[in-house]
Amino acid sequence: MAELPEVDLDALRREGLLPTPEGEGTQHDGTGRVDIAFTVDAGPEAPPTKRSVRVPPGVTVFDSASWNGIAIDSTCGGHGTCHKCKVRVEGQSPITRHDVRTFTPDQIAEGWRLACLVKATRDLQVDVPPLTTRPKAATVGVGRQVILRPAVQKRYVELDEPTLADQRSDLVRLTDAITDLELTADLSVLRRLATVLRQADFKVTAVVVDEALVDVEPGDTTDVRHAIAFDLGTTTVVATLLDLATGTPVAVASMLNKQQPFGADVITRISATMMDEGMLDKLRAAAGDTLSDLADQVCREGRVDPRTVYEVAVAGNATMTALALGIDPEPLGVAPFVMSTAHPPTVLASDVGLDLHPRARAVLFPALGAYVGGDIVAGMLATGMDRDKRTRLFIDVGTNCEIVLSDGDTIVSTAAPAGPAFEGGAIRCGMRAADGAIETVGLDGASGDVALGVIGDVEPRGLCGSGLVDVVSELVRVGLLDATGRFVPDEDAATALPALADRLTRVGEERVFVLHQPSPDSPPEESVYLSQRDVRELQFAKAAISTGWSLLLSELGLEQRDVQQVLLAGSFGSYLSPAAAVRIGLVPKLPVLRIVAAGNVAGEGAKMALLSVRERAGAAALLEEVTYVELSDRPDFNDRFVEQLGFST
Amino acid sequence: MAELPEVDLDALRREGLLPTPEGEGTQHDGTGRVDIAFTVDAGPEAPPTKRSVRVPPGVTVFDSASWNGIAIDSTCGGHGTCHKCKVRVEGQSPITRHDVRTFTPDQIAEGWRLACLVKATRDLQVDVPPLTTRPKAATVGVGRQVILRPAVQKRYVELDEPTLADQRSDLVRLTDAITDLELTADLSVLRRLATVLRQADFKVTAVVVDEALVDVEPGDTTDVRHAIAFDLGTTTVVATLLDLATGTPVAVASMLNKQQPFGADVITRISATMMDEGMLDKLRAAAGDTLSDLADQVCREGRVDPRTVYEVAVAGNATMTALALGIDPEPLGVAPFVMSTAHPPTVLASDVGLDLHPRARAVLFPALGAYVGGDIVAGMLATGMDRDKRTRLFIDVGTNCEIVLSDGDTIVSTAAPAGPAFEGGAIRCGMRAADGAIETVGLDGASGDVALGVIGDVEPRGLCGSGLVDVVSELVRVGLLDATGRFVPDEDAATALPALADRLTRVGEERVFVLHQPSPDSPPEESVYLSQRDVRELQFAKAAISTGWSLLLSELGLEQRDVQQVLLAGSFGSYLSPAAAVRIGLVPKLPVLRIVAAGNVAGEGAKMALLSVRERAGAAALLEEVTYVELSDRPDFNDRFVEQLGFST
Repeated sequence: MAELPEVDLDALRREGLLPTPEGEGTQHDGTGRVDIAFTVDAGPEAPPTKRSVRVPPGVTVFDSASWNGIAIDSTCGGHGTCHKCKVRVEGQSPITRHDVRTFTPDQIAEGWRLACLVKATRDLQVDVPPLTTRPKAATVGVGRQVILRPAVQKRYVELDEPTLADQRSDLVRLTDAITDLELTADLSVLRRLATVLRQADFKVTAVVVDEALVDVEPGDTTDVRHAIAFDLGTTTVVATLLDLATGTPVAVASMLNKQQPFGADVITRISATMMDEGMLDKLRAAAGDTLSDLADQVCREGRVDPRTVYEVAVAGNATMTALALGIDPEPLGVAPFVMSTAHPPTVLASDVGLDLHPRARAVLFPALGAYVGGDIVAGMLATGMDRDKRTRLFIDVGTNCEIVLSDGDTIVSTAAPAGPAFEGGAIRCGMRAADGAIETVGLDGASGDVALGVIGDVEPRGLCGSGLVDVVSELVRVGLLDATGRFVPDEDAATALPALADRLTRVGEERVFVLHQPSPDSPPEESVYLSQRDVRELQFAKAAISTGWSLLLSELGLEQRDVQQVLLAGSFGSYLSPAAAVRIGLVPKLPVLRIVAAGNVAGEGAKMALLSVRERAGAAALLEEVTYVELSDRPDFNDRFVEQLGFST
Repeated sequence: MAELPEVDLDALRREGLLPTPEGEGTQHDGTGRVDIAFTVDAGPEAPPTKRSVRVPPGVTVFDSASWNGIAIDSTCGGHGTCHKCKVRVEGQSPITRHDVRTFTPDQIAEGWRLACLVKATRDLQVDVPPLTTRPKAATVGVGRQVILRPAVQKRYVELDEPTLADQRSDLVRLTDAITDLELTADLSVLRRLATVLRQADFKVTAVVVDEALVDVEPGDTTDVRHAIAFDLGTTTVVATLLDLATGTPVAVASMLNKQQPFGADVITRISATMMDEGMLDKLRAAAGDTLSDLADQVCREGRVDPRTVYEVAVAGNATMTALALGIDPEPLGVAPFVMSTAHPPTVLASDVGLDLHPRARAVLFPALGAYVGGDIVAGMLATGMDRDKRTRLFIDVGTNCEIVLSDGDTIVSTAAPAGPAFEGGAIRCGMRAADGAIETVGLDGASGDVALGVIGDVEPRGLCGSGLVDVVSELVRVGLLDATGRFVPDEDAATALPALADRLTRVGEERVFVLHQPSPDSPPEESVYLSQRDVRELQFAKAAISTGWSLLLSELGLEQRDVQQVLLAGSFGSYLSPAAAVRIGLVPKLPVLRIVAAGNVAGEGAKMALLSVRERAGAAALLEEVTYVELSDRPDFNDRFVEQLGFST
């Protein structure tokens, strides 16, 4: 299969994102997926390659191929207009008028069809002819190979000048020269079209986003087109400037969300809008300022003219998305937690406060629910949650924790309110993962050594979420915390772990475990420590999360051991030590190798949406596939929650 | 046929807009039209009615019916979404997925189809079942009966409130309740949706334009919806405020186009934009001011809140349309006379300077060519040029004169530069048709009586276009002008027409015919007169026009006598005396009864587009049907022009 040049399957397999060949096509159990067996003619030099992929019924053959890195010729990107994505399908499939225009009756009888118009409603065998043009591809997401088909396209054309015998309008003259797209022109283009065409001697570059003609530029500017992917987090916002001609990142920048001063988490920001009439506008402006400052920064760093940025994608949770668009978020904050819309409309970048190309589009990711938002949909896209036969669990750990479980056929998701523990809030010595934060802790019961990993290799100032999980799991392991999460009595500690026992002391009334003392004789309250209440905070957080995934497992009738991969997402997830996460029961009891830190998957998903309209369609398709499970009305939630509070040693 | 309640066929026939029954369906000669024979079940009380109509191939059965006043049930207005327009079609026609959803296999086998999805590609027989709801209809255009299907629709809904068991988004909750339309929501609606729904206890009215959800209003406002039709003339602009719930006009207002100070005709205004950088913006603003002043006026008069005006239609020539949109008009003014686009995009009313509902749409009529613009397309719609089997000639007389000829199968059109004669410009005593203008002239050779019809019954101040045509035709009739357009020598006049001869005198070097003297002894130069040069001006104008229609006649291989109806459009056309027009050869030599003054057909067409989306589609379809003939590159133009200069007595 290595013959497929545009897809590095081994890379995908290393990332655990591809089913193993043995498994292929053999397990179809008719529960909501169909198999498509592709035979790809790699041209004269190479033998044909075979690939079997699994997709939800109704997905087009073209998308099924695109989503699995199999390239099929196309210039329109699957809109049914370029008539280039020719494949041969075994057995009879419906014939469209486009097929009739494209193929001879014999070819149609032989099963030739346009791949973007054939829906996979049953298992199919599909022959893909050799590519006439080799498509560019880029690696994004968690090692996903994406075939470059941006919504932003540029076409350089040299047009005949009008004559009395050829009085076609300027627009028709232009669109006649671009036969593979059905273009509609923005008024702003029509206002300039006549002038630009004549000043440029009818040699111009059409700028197209999807099928909207957004600009006409003099001469050939086809290589100059950019987009910006935004990960719009409640706390941190990340922007990546992409060169759409090559699919490569040009510059990356991040900053704190300027909404921070109005509230640390989504609930406080929503409440703020309920208190104060003008707050929605303030928050909308703050989001806009954040996005546009980052846009300026990446354009400066990348030496890119902002007017050559024609599209942006924004992956944010439902509240961040609503606030960025100026949509009233109140119903997101109160039961029954309802969104204004799951599918935000495509708007102009200027509608979210960006000053790029005046007609640049902004694509905001759709959401599964009020608390499983566009950031998670983007994450699912980046991790290919719907394109893998294995049983995988996706956990985005944070104040609000989103959980997605797929058994290869069915995907379920939910949200668990983890509280502020992981962000450092409500933890006595808690801090955000910044310089001076203890992020790893190792305890040696015999020697009494305490090994601290500190961000920035500086004097420890506090505990970040990963350090919190580490120290608690270590204390459970060595036996200073019992299964209920209570510090063992001093006398037991003294006898069992004399070397560590003296770190077990008190701050005020509360028992604490000292991790770092500024100086040997400094009092406990001046040291970095873990308090009994801190442990309780973590217990509540992890109980909420593990209740979430355990409910999802039972939804699909699965056990913990059935999970083949756990993806830990979000900045916190990346810091988290898999071993510790397993030990405290934040994730199912699994070999640590099955637990993967996935990094900033939301931002990766946003990039994919900009690099490929087909991936973008995939993100939308996810909403049909994934079932959202609301925890708050589950009768068994509380029982399970209590079960999950303890530490099983 | 009087049983068809919603169509007054006799009225149409009186207007000469319906073929006579004898003729129906008998003459199909396969040259570009198909016949559809409708059998309409009028319900138990009445016998079924039969109607045969003739349409271009490819038009849907639904449109074919709508355009001919035959009502078929529909709530979506022919978008294929409401599944209500059920008809039975003889013979097999293609089956769509919508048909499969709508009908049983037996019904499909019997030929039942959705009328909006059946294209008439051959002669058809169609049975229309009784109406479940009788549609409203309005009479507009030249006695055209239009079935009310505005693009603007309102739907009052009472929604269930969300629960944890029903977390549908607000938008889905709303659209689920409006099953017959596929709505997309403007961002502005999403920004307010949550608030409005909850403030109004989920009892709201959805405001829809086409399939865009443009607003959600608390409570039931379904009866409150308005639109404004604009006839955007180079000289005069007319606005009609329509109540879309009833289809009736609420108020009408007109004023001079505020672009007037920048140039009297389109060419001077185009040149102005070529001289002066900022002129395009100035002209665009002037157009916007004109439209919005008129909108204010009709809303005030009609006591209508401008925010309940959700759509406007604008019928103007290509230059007025371009200037209103801020599109560079330069290529319209110089050979080869090219438009930026024939189909202006649908924009917001605010884009053309109107302050109505913030999301109100503005629909601008498409144009056939640089000099056969949207006003003429609207006129063709209003006069049903494409829906009549008779040979008809449409002439809009003005500085630029547009001519359309239909033989019932083929439609051709052209533009003739008539010059300023008819607007009073370049005529010594010329003036616009206003108080004091002589509009009719009658000469009695024997008695020497000169009967003058004067607008406003005041002292004559000058000659308007119709008076000009009248006096010239009278002078030709009595013999004071010869066939070449020269005043006969004084001596011949004295002998032949002594009673009138003394009115034939001189102003300076030039020979003139005096029509009115302020006082018996006032010198000729102070009187209202017609000069030799005036006659020449008219000769050039009428030669240009008659060359236009004679070339169109030869295009279709027709003679003047074949023309069954001549429609004279435009304000000037309405004043023109048919007899005089015939006598000077401005129109073909025909019985005067075949010559009809059609009035302001552009404004009527604009109304129709607002009252019915199907009529609007008809206007767009006209562009495919009508062939534009460019005169300026016709080799035989000059010969014919010279032929037409004289007066055949």
